[in-house]
Amino acid sequence: MPEQLYTDWAIQAYLDKLAGSDPEPGGGSVAALTGALGAGLVTMVTALTLGKEKYAAVQDDMAWLRNEAEQLRADLAGFVSADAEAYAKVAAAMKMPRGTDTEKAERSTVLQAALRGAADVPLKVAEAALAVARLSQPAAEKGNTNAVSDAGVAVLLADASAQAAALNVKINLAWIEDAAFKTETWSRIESILEETGRLRDLVLALTYDKI
Amino acid sequence: MPEQLYTDWAIQAYLDKLAGSDPEPGGGSVAALTGALGAGLVTMVTALTLGKEKYAAVQDDMAWLRNEAEQLRADLAGFVSADAEAYAKVAAAMKMPRGTDTEKAERSTVLQAALRGAADVPLKVAEAALAVARLSQPAAEKGNTNAVSDAGVAVLLADASAQAAALNVKINLAWIEDAAFKTETWSRIESILEETGRLRDLVLALTYDKI
Repeated sequence: MPEQLYTDWAIQAYLDKLAGSDPEPGGGSVAALTGALGAGLVTMVTALTLGKEKYAAVQDDMAWLRNEAEQLRADLAGFVSADAEAYAKVAAAMKMPRGTDTEKAERSTVLQAALRGAADVPLKVAEAALAVARLSQPAAEKGNTNAVSDAGVAVLLADASAQAAALNVKINLAWIEDAAFKTETWSRIESILEETGRLRDLVLALTYDKI
Repeated sequence: MPEQLYTDWAIQAYLDKLAGSDPEPGGGSVAALTGALGAGLVTMVTALTLGKEKYAAVQDDMAWLRNEAEQLRADLAGFVSADAEAYAKVAAAMKMPRGTDTEKAERSTVLQAALRGAADVPLKVAEAALAVARLSQPAAEKGNTNAVSDAGVAVLLADASAQAAALNVKINLAWIEDAAFKTETWSRIESILEETGRLRDLVLALTYDKI
């Protein structure tokens, strides 16, 4: 676990730690960062549209869009470190002794709880990434045309973030024993990926039409 | 243009500037960062495989993979700021006077050169992202199975990076007058996107098979 939030680290330092032999930060943390970058691009489109007379008719839409995107950006930025922390709990549980039956049972209880926590963070990342993908559509449709490519990049990042988060949900589910939890969680992920994929195609087509 | 390289900025500060009303950094810079994160994940897979007896047979492959990924990570990290600098040159050329025919001609010459530069950076990003996508395949196939999801995230980011870079090539090409340059550049982008899309499907399938 980092001594400070990863979002306070320099980009280069984060990249260097990512590339190192420590398993965290890994794909789960990066999934969250990718989503936060997408949310930041949606906000940027609103920032380039708000206060512009040419876009007077969409000022209320843009103000709403900005608030939504900024909340998602804050949530996703928080998950950049939260994912690493959830991983650390799993790693700690793995190291618990399993010499006796009591120790085995205790380790299993703690590990199963840690795995649920580690699956929950990327699930939340995927939900937030889907929300970013949804916001990219009005950003591309109604935002400043000069910034439409930024709305297009936002949907690409939102989809990649959801897909990356899904892989990180899957690796934790693989070790979870509660079959109902596994089925329910994966079913939610599948519906998220279906919608982010649909939005990616739709918003990319909108974007290319306007460039 | 930033006073220091964006990669020396804290992640949160970069996200905040991205979300602001300054058009840079925008989607082009983020495309490069996304690719650098993908390259970092490929390196991480090699770091978790090198020196492990279980993976003795693939040590040479991993050493090669590591060198390639680290070069691409350095290149892509450099493009995070280079994209913003190329944009600044276009913005400066746009502000040149066009009162007389001489001024118009001079502005046009400078602007066309700046636009080529601004199209060239995301083209290089797309080329590097394709190279990262190619490396993610041996990372998923031969790397430490415990890190296979990181190889999967790498290909997702490489594909999103190439797609995002393509949008940024397109917006600059829209204003370039040299028809041959436009056709040639876009044709290269189309073949890059075809291959990154193919690799995304292939490496994701490989990854899900191993989780």
